[in-house]
Amino acid sequence: MGFSYLWAMSKDSKDLQAKRPLILVTNDDGITARGIRSLIEVATEFGEVWVVAPDSPQSGMGHAITVNNILRLREEHHEPEEVHEYACSGTPVDCVKLAVYRVLKQRPDLLLSGINHGANNSINVIYSGTMSAAVEGAVENIPSIGFSLLDHSSDADFTAAREVARKIIRAALANGIPNHTCLNVNIPKGPPSSIKGIRVCRQGQAFWEDNFMPRKDPSGKIYYWITGELNNQDKGKDTDIWALENGYVSVVPVQFDLTAYHAMATLNSWEYE
Amino acid sequence: MGFSYLWAMSKDSKDLQAKRPLILVTNDDGITARGIRSLIEVATEFGEVWVVAPDSPQSGMGHAITVNNILRLREEHHEPEEVHEYACSGTPVDCVKLAVYRVLKQRPDLLLSGINHGANNSINVIYSGTMSAAVEGAVENIPSIGFSLLDHSSDADFTAAREVARKIIRAALANGIPNHTCLNVNIPKGPPSSIKGIRVCRQGQAFWEDNFMPRKDPSGKIYYWITGELNNQDKGKDTDIWALENGYVSVVPVQFDLTAYHAMATLNSWEYE
Repeated sequence: MGFSYLWAMSKDSKDLQAKRPLILVTNDDGITARGIRSLIEVATEFGEVWVVAPDSPQSGMGHAITVNNILRLREEHHEPEEVHEYACSGTPVDCVKLAVYRVLKQRPDLLLSGINHGANNSINVIYSGTMSAAVEGAVENIPSIGFSLLDHSSDADFTAAREVARKIIRAALANGIPNHTCLNVNIPKGPPSSIKGIRVCRQGQAFWEDNFMPRKDPSGKIYYWITGELNNQDKGKDTDIWALENGYVSVVPVQFDLTAYHAMATLNSWEYE
Repeated sequence: MGFSYLWAMSKDSKDLQAKRPLILVTNDDGITARGIRSLIEVATEFGEVWVVAPDSPQSGMGHAITVNNILRLREEHHEPEEVHEYACSGTPVDCVKLAVYRVLKQRPDLLLSGINHGANNSINVIYSGTMSAAVEGAVENIPSIGFSLLDHSSDADFTAAREVARKIIRAALANGIPNHTCLNVNIPKGPPSSIKGIRVCRQGQAFWEDNFMPRKDPSGKIYYWITGELNNQDKGKDTDIWALENGYVSVVPVQFDLTAYHAMATLNSWEYE
């Protein structure tokens, strides 16, 4: 499944060097976030890197696309210099679409999204802009991986996340990600030495018990901030929730066919009158 | 699966009347759109109706939630008078969360989203605000149905869509929707007589070939509008795409566990070094 880029990279001829994979990097925290800068650093070890990422934070944007507004795209220059970077006014999914259909001269060999500042395991996968960018890659049948670190703090340490990203990118390029699938990788908080290993998991079934904090604006009108707590009733030890709580990196293969096949026979027994 | 509300509704005692289902209605085209007004009209035939819907169009918002901004909620009065209505500044998913955790005094028995102005079959399910509201209902284990009419025009005829919605709501209340599943219902354009029937389908596998139309603003800077065409390589006759092209209403049961179970064994064979 997929051409082994590692083999090509181990050779020293110019011809083979030209086969370095084209890697598209995006995220949802914005192009200047520390997480994406970490991911770009790792990506440059593996191939030619192009970045199309939001010009402002887009957390929680899910699979949103911009249909009722215009999109702006601006070339930017950051370190390292050899990376081509564009900031986009839209959502993470807009970034992927613009990259594939407008910016890149050829289809990317790999799409990397993140490293997100905060968890995207369990049900968070459907709210997450980071993972929606990876899912959009899977729709386009581009091998895609989303990375998230379980640390929201502004001084989060990305050392372990970078090490994990390096290992998983290497394995993905060597083996090829199954067609129309992307990987949802979540990394526990802490130093590299605290990580117990990498586990392939299923998406844990949990939901957010939301709590809307009411506040008053200067004119006395009420508005709300969304907050909440993850309610996990899923006691399985094969979930991403369990893996992360027990010090493992979770890798969930993600697909985008939402059909509930198990429910089709039941629905076919209904009478519609 | 689920208490049969139809039975209760056929009785005439006040006691049973009190068991009329509580129905939450939302959409992504905004609270004044003709589609949601049609759906509210049908919903009042079945139960007590509460509406929490966006105050402006939210098409293409996918599963976005508002985490970086405040949310406003405003009570409104429309016809019919007995319906409780709230306009919300957020996305369709915000509307469902606000309704469940802030507005409603009890959990809704049924969530209806739509009727969307335009198709939400195939891959559109992941971009659609209408369907994301229904999926959010499924996450909360509320029986949920999203309706979409394959007609974008402002003078679209919702007669057939209302008839279909009536049939499917009746069947859903009588049979109960399977747990953690919602229905994605798409209705072909045309008069009721042109509809050949209702088909339970799987989500057709297609993707958007995007085309970004460049334009210049008054200062000469380029911006883009997203456009595109659905590329369908899926020739199955069991897909929603096939059903709609052949004059049938498509009903796809939708779930939110994105795990690609078929890929887990492959990923477990990888070496991470």
